[in-house]
Amino acid sequence: MKYYAGVDLGGTNTKIGIVGEDGVILTRNNIKTQSHSGVEATMTRIWQEIVRLCTEGEISAQSLSGIGIGIPGPVMNQEVVGFFANFPWEVDINLAELMRKISGIDTRLENDVNVIAMGESKFGAGRGSSSSITVALGTGVGGGIVVNSKLISGMNGAGGEIGHMKLVENGKLCGCGQRGCFETYASATGVIREAKSRLAVNKNNLLYKSLDGNMEKLEAKDVFDCAKAGDEFSMEIVNYVGNYLGMGIGNLLNVINPEIIILSGGVALAGEILLDVVKEKLKQYAMPVTLKNLEIKLGELGNDAGIKGGIALFL
Amino acid sequence: MKYYAGVDLGGTNTKIGIVGEDGVILTRNNIKTQSHSGVEATMTRIWQEIVRLCTEGEISAQSLSGIGIGIPGPVMNQEVVGFFANFPWEVDINLAELMRKISGIDTRLENDVNVIAMGESKFGAGRGSSSSITVALGTGVGGGIVVNSKLISGMNGAGGEIGHMKLVENGKLCGCGQRGCFETYASATGVIREAKSRLAVNKNNLLYKSLDGNMEKLEAKDVFDCAKAGDEFSMEIVNYVGNYLGMGIGNLLNVINPEIIILSGGVALAGEILLDVVKEKLKQYAMPVTLKNLEIKLGELGNDAGIKGGIALFL
Repeated sequence: MKYYAGVDLGGTNTKIGIVGEDGVILTRNNIKTQSHSGVEATMTRIWQEIVRLCTEGEISAQSLSGIGIGIPGPVMNQEVVGFFANFPWEVDINLAELMRKISGIDTRLENDVNVIAMGESKFGAGRGSSSSITVALGTGVGGGIVVNSKLISGMNGAGGEIGHMKLVENGKLCGCGQRGCFETYASATGVIREAKSRLAVNKNNLLYKSLDGNMEKLEAKDVFDCAKAGDEFSMEIVNYVGNYLGMGIGNLLNVINPEIIILSGGVALAGEILLDVVKEKLKQYAMPVTLKNLEIKLGELGNDAGIKGGIALFL
Repeated sequence: MKYYAGVDLGGTNTKIGIVGEDGVILTRNNIKTQSHSGVEATMTRIWQEIVRLCTEGEISAQSLSGIGIGIPGPVMNQEVVGFFANFPWEVDINLAELMRKISGIDTRLENDVNVIAMGESKFGAGRGSSSSITVALGTGVGGGIVVNSKLISGMNGAGGEIGHMKLVENGKLCGCGQRGCFETYASATGVIREAKSRLAVNKNNLLYKSLDGNMEKLEAKDVFDCAKAGDEFSMEIVNYVGNYLGMGIGNLLNVINPEIIILSGGVALAGEILLDVVKEKLKQYAMPVTLKNLEIKLGELGNDAGIKGGIALFL
């Protein structure tokens, strides 16, 4: 059995796992990223933890076949990080080279959402397929596209940035500074924003009651829960979000025509109530030929997607 | 030198060329497709013409390294044609197998626009790149996407059907039966449709004068020519079309982040006047990182794109 280290580098915590080529995690742990200590110190601590996890798993760290790291930022050629979101680190660092120097082990990087997509493609909901698109519906909307069993990383590491497809000309303002982006409509933030906007003029609904007057605690999940409980006001928001989710996914189907769409992230946890709307809307937005034999599934790897995806970069 | 046959199967005419692995055409000819004679008869006549062209070029037909055929319809696994647009032929024919049986030569198929994209990628405007998107702006809007030097063909042969991305919710009705498709705005048909709609209420412009009262003869080229001649009415249509062209291309950049966008087809012949609008609009629709080092070029292969693309399927 070949073993790899999968590393999910996060703003606060970094997940590290030693994983067999079969996708089974041997040992794992989370450590504080402490990016303020600098890039070399952080990479050294990650390597020390990898060594410790290998010892715990009774294998030799020097026998690892590779280290795969998911990065919160764009990655070029699986080597160079364009910039780190929220890290006080320089631009265009060759982090793969640095980790190879520290560890002596072959190292590959990818954007964190791309890594999740690769993990789902090889070990999760996309097992056995050669093309899949993972749509990560969280605070924003991220994406990872696998075609011919390889990631579309993009010339500047921006492949799969589906959250910034424009669905509405001069639409809602996005955090990116542009307007009408997919993620302003279909992310958890988008759900909350739409709900608050509607709640400002309509308080006669279950959603408002469930908040006890505290709008600040509103989460996307509340909207889905109230819709499931039969609240029409909330169901209309689900329809609104599902419509744009259908439009965005429909566009991806027309461009890529993949075998599988994998929905992951918090919004995807809404489950059937949202999925049913999306499937209905796809008939209006996707070419019928792209829906033939298409599977739409929820992500299966959850918290392990980053670690398992890291090693999938080598398979 | 290895030689290949490139075949561009069209509704009326079929272009055939014998091409070296360097992309230089040795001999070429057009024949009538005569699809009504049936699929076997048509393929047999194409093979006979390939043999004749080899003789003319003083090489042996049996020494050909492959036959690459561009198909007006979706192609699965470079073998099976889902259906032929405007041909009285059956669905799901394995045309590659049929041609191999007739000729004894390895045969590969692809959708015709995908073939053009492959030709431009290997021998034309995309030479030397590993990722490019060809946007074919004709009667409709077609596309071919090359990533990691390979086509995105799609599970059902519908990869690169960019003309049916939805840019406007409940927008203009498209020939496909859906609404708001990219091609309803950015194709030659879209340009003519918008111009006629505006001409119905405004005849005080150069475009109307240039038509001598005969609206039926209006072509997209007239709009671009009048805009170049300073007609404000026509320039507004160019801005309108360029806006949606920017939105559609911007979405592709965010999803794929390619090195090159290649514009081909009749509308692309508008040249700088349209390209300038598109480049300006891209700043509003594409993530800035995707514009870094991006090249936007016009297709270089013209009428040879189909033939050269056919052989590019083997390289």
